Amino acid sequence: MLNIKITPATEKKAKPDSKHLGFGVFYTDNMLVIDHTEGIGWHDARIVPYQPLSIDPAAMVLHYAMESFEGLKAYRKPDGSVQLFRPDCNAERMINTNKRMCLPTLPVEDFVQAVKTLVKVEEDWVPSEPGTSLYIRPFVIATEPHLGVRTSKTHQFIIICSPVGAYYSTGINPVKIFVEDEYTRACPGGTGFTKCGGNYAASLISQVKAHDLGYEQTLWLDGVEHKYVEEVGSMNCFFKIDGTIYTAPCVGTVLPGVTRRSCIDLLKHWGYTVSEERLPIADVMKASEEGKLEEVFGTGTAAVISPVGELRFEDQVAYINNGEIGPVTHKLYDTLTGIQWGTLKDEMGWTVPVE
Amino acid sequence: MLNIKITPATEKKAKPDSKHLGFGVFYTDNMLVIDHTEGIGWHDARIVPYQPLSIDPAAMVLHYAMESFEGLKAYRKPDGSVQLFRPDCNAERMINTNKRMCLPTLPVEDFVQAVKTLVKVEEDWVPSEPGTSLYIRPFVIATEPHLGVRTSKTHQFIIICSPVGAYYSTGINPVKIFVEDEYTRACPGGTGFTKCGGNYAASLISQVKAHDLGYEQTLWLDGVEHKYVEEVGSMNCFFKIDGTIYTAPCVGTVLPGVTRRSCIDLLKHWGYTVSEERLPIADVMKASEEGKLEEVFGTGTAAVISPVGELRFEDQVAYINNGEIGPVTHKLYDTLTGIQWGTLKDEMGWTVPVE
Ligand SMILES: Cc1ncc(COP(=O)(O)O)c(C=O)c1O
Ligand SMILES: Cc1ncc(COP(=O)(O)O)c(C=O)c1O
Repeated sequence: MLNIKITPATEKKAKPDSKHLGFGVFYTDNMLVIDHTEGIGWHDARIVPYQPLSIDPAAMVLHYAMESFEGLKAYRKPDGSVQLFRPDCNAERMINTNKRMCLPTLPVEDFVQAVKTLVKVEEDWVPSEPGTSLYIRPFVIATEPHLGVRTSKTHQFIIICSPVGAYYSTGINPVKIFVEDEYTRACPGGTGFTKCGGNYAASLISQVKAHDLGYEQTLWLDGVEHKYVEEVGSMNCFFKIDGTIYTAPCVGTVLPGVTRRSCIDLLKHWGYTVSEERLPIADVMKASEEGKLEEVFGTGTAAVISPVGELRFEDQVAYINNGEIGPVTHKLYDTLTGIQWGTLKDEMGWTVPVE
Repeated sequence: MLNIKITPATEKKAKPDSKHLGFGVFYTDNMLVIDHTEGIGWHDARIVPYQPLSIDPAAMVLHYAMESFEGLKAYRKPDGSVQLFRPDCNAERMINTNKRMCLPTLPVEDFVQAVKTLVKVEEDWVPSEPGTSLYIRPFVIATEPHLGVRTSKTHQFIIICSPVGAYYSTGINPVKIFVEDEYTRACPGGTGFTKCGGNYAASLISQVKAHDLGYEQTLWLDGVEHKYVEEVGSMNCFFKIDGTIYTAPCVGTVLPGVTRRSCIDLLKHWGYTVSEERLPIADVMKASEEGKLEEVFGTGTAAVISPVGELRFEDQVAYINNGEIGPVTHKLYDTLTGIQWGTLKDEMGWTVPVE
């Protein structure tokens, strides 16, 4: 159990218009900070006013990217109460990330307690417009000033919160995806399964390229053979081909998404066959030609479920389901958002109230 | 030409004992900062007292590792003057890094001017004990507070300096190197050729493993086949086998070291055959068994030239030159350090005075 000292902001910011929140643009009044010191462990958990960090220019996070993060949301239910979606999964994933990155790990209970305590303090920042939520960003940074490459002796665990809008302001529109065949995101033995900062910095160049070509996001192929589909920018990716639903296995190079796991569970529960075998991009394009590529969608905390309407790989373009959201994609979207915003009964036991 | 406003610290720190400097432990009185804003470019170049940075907790550098760095040194010559070693090479490498990482680039002349101007201000921090120097750390960070993954609209280019000791306090002792066969550092299409922070965060786990096994550093193999030697933690690596000198090609996965390039030039100048073909680790171990692995050494700004005395790959151990520094390694060390500290004539035109 953390002993969290709460000294919130005395002056509160004006709340932004919840019809125009965007993503990660506004921040709440307070933040949570826990210090970590080698030989002492985690100490001085506190909630303080949201404020700039004072960071030594030699702090290791600024040079060697010794940092990791998580992302989850708090949702406003119809009865006005607030709930989280599987925060323990984020806590566990951060432990896995931090072990790989040689960063200190926070126990699952402490992570969840920290999230709940901050969200409780910021409760009036959880918006209630349809599709809006409070995005929660826990992260860890190495703060020791030291220029030799080695593990850091001091770290901070910080949580900030941002009220965010519906990802698709005009309803769920299928996105256009560019299959990256030059740059790579992850390879075996690397950090692909973690939410370390470095994975995202390395991916920007492909995002820029995709945008320049008129596509919204990048679909990554495996780093060794550039042959198998892995995941989209910040989403896992599912393909329904001839009745079977495929998604890349989480074997080191793919981020194990909480939404991905939840979709697999729901799909199996509904009787679908879900394959986590590696899927060659060539098979996807062939299925499209043969009229067997029924649905493609991305899954992630930000957009929940995002239908894919177009997939470009080299000179081939696959148009999926006439640019409309498919029935399985739709059912997943309705079910997950229903559970998350509390309009559907949570039969899976995934939600956690913030009391 | 940058217009650098100089407002140095009025109170100076006490200088550390130059016999016990370590690496990256002490920082000088001042630092250089240049801001970058989308649509404006670089502006407000200034030298100010070394001080903590005020960074928004949502700044992109802390989440997505949008950061890059360089490392070079200023050397005190016997006549008391100060010089740099090939700073234009660092400037060019940072441009290549930043293009890959979608960070703004600083023109070569501005980079070199910034380094020279700061070193001039900090001139009395350049130590003069044998083997000591002033380590210079330019770096770029993305400062915009934004949680969506995209390029940042604001950045800072910063230079800090640290007086550093002789890398080997007891003379040049051969190091023991562990060949990493599980984790990977880089793969084609990734960021291996850049000095982005993420490469170093990802490498820590192998460093910890090597230390636990009694080795000082990790030798990385290629990320695809785990077959070819690439580079050591923060050094490029050379192998002299049966008269020929091999070093990994810089084709995307290996950092193009300034020391590496300089060694290749010197070796060729001296008439050695240098091969930049890919070298399988199996060939290195076989050469060792056959008594043909004559010398192995690492090259990098920090240690200049570092002889390798022992190489462990899986269950095999190669002992090199009876744990003694070999003649080619020695000649390179003497020549490079002679040029850098100004005790030898710089026939290659590599040094740049700080006036
Ligand atoms: C690379 C990557 N893949 C997949 C996901 C989806 O994961 P989750 O469903 O837990 O949000 C994310 C976002 O967190 C991500 O950054
Ligand atoms: C990964 C890596 N390889 C090699 C080197 C050697 O490069 P240089 O000789 O430019 O210092 C460094 C250090 O800069 C490095 O970080």
